[in-house]
Amino acid sequence: MQFSHRLLSETVQSGDTVIDATMGNGHDTLFLAELVGTQGMVYSFDIQPLALEKTHALLDQSHKKFPQVNLIEASHDQISKFVTSPIMGAIFNLGYLPGGDKTIITKSTSTISAIQQCLNLIEIGGRVVLVCYYGHPGGREELTRLLEFVSKLDQKEFSCLRYEFINQINNPPILLCIERKK
Amino acid sequence: MQFSHRLLSETVQSGDTVIDATMGNGHDTLFLAELVGTQGMVYSFDIQPLALEKTHALLDQSHKKFPQVNLIEASHDQISKFVTSPIMGAIFNLGYLPGGDKTIITKSTSTISAIQQCLNLIEIGGRVVLVCYYGHPGGREELTRLLEFVSKLDQKEFSCLRYEFINQINNPPILLCIERKK
Repeated sequence: MQFSHRLLSETVQSGDTVIDATMGNGHDTLFLAELVGTQGMVYSFDIQPLALEKTHALLDQSHKKFPQVNLIEASHDQISKFVTSPIMGAIFNLGYLPGGDKTIITKSTSTISAIQQCLNLIEIGGRVVLVCYYGHPGGREELTRLLEFVSKLDQKEFSCLRYEFINQINNPPILLCIERKK
Repeated sequence: MQFSHRLLSETVQSGDTVIDATMGNGHDTLFLAELVGTQGMVYSFDIQPLALEKTHALLDQSHKKFPQVNLIEASHDQISKFVTSPIMGAIFNLGYLPGGDKTIITKSTSTISAIQQCLNLIEIGGRVVLVCYYGHPGGREELTRLLEFVSKLDQKEFSCLRYEFINQINNPPILLCIERKK
């Protein structure tokens, strides 16, 4: 299991509401859909129609019904317009859509706004997981701003962990996990 | 449960052999002793007699017998002289003994030698966990050398993860976890 998925599966349970803030190819959406089950709710966001197409195709491949999944063609900085109920988890894959247009990348301003919207919704014990790819142009700048934002979150309210594989080549992603403590 | 203990409890099982490379007050030794049980084996190292006294006292407090525990008054760079069987886990608390003589600190040369000796003994799936306190004089230098050493470990053989609480004040420890892949 991917490390980011492990972090979510430790807290998210069947029936929970969760957010995939960067739908991309739909792998996280599928994972979340399985995790929360038909009693739960998954809201997935992407500004690129291609992402919705790919995700639809991926979900269809499994030959299951996923009434719990809502694919939303909108920027993740619109989360609070679509999601109002408390969430137990959210995942962000920051960078660009693999196989898609590499010039369309996530940007720190809207990313940070989206993270803040998730933190406003997150329940105690819930986690917002950020998978930060930073090898692309603009990636390091986004990472720096993100780290700045996350490291300033109140330690009484949130525990913020940074996970990083330090002996791999090719800039493996850095993971940030924000967990609400109280 | 402490994060370092969680990382070990995910892989170490009853009957396993493990190393506490920095006995200190004995908390890790006690934890490891419970984890491997009387069928396992714990080797604990410290150069300070005070550490052995405190650890003995801590083990006695629990009113249990711990035939699996070996307290060894020696530097952890002597591990290979005392341990020859394969191990599933090792823990290092790097810094100084809380409540002890703050001028006696772990040093990068012997620390790295000790880690290497553990890596020579570690089984597939086993973990060497390094809890790095670096707020004391000499601490940052040790950390830098450690990161340098760990980041050069072959990614085919070891997966090395760095864990760090990034929104806490007072230099919380950085955790490094080296897991043998094959």
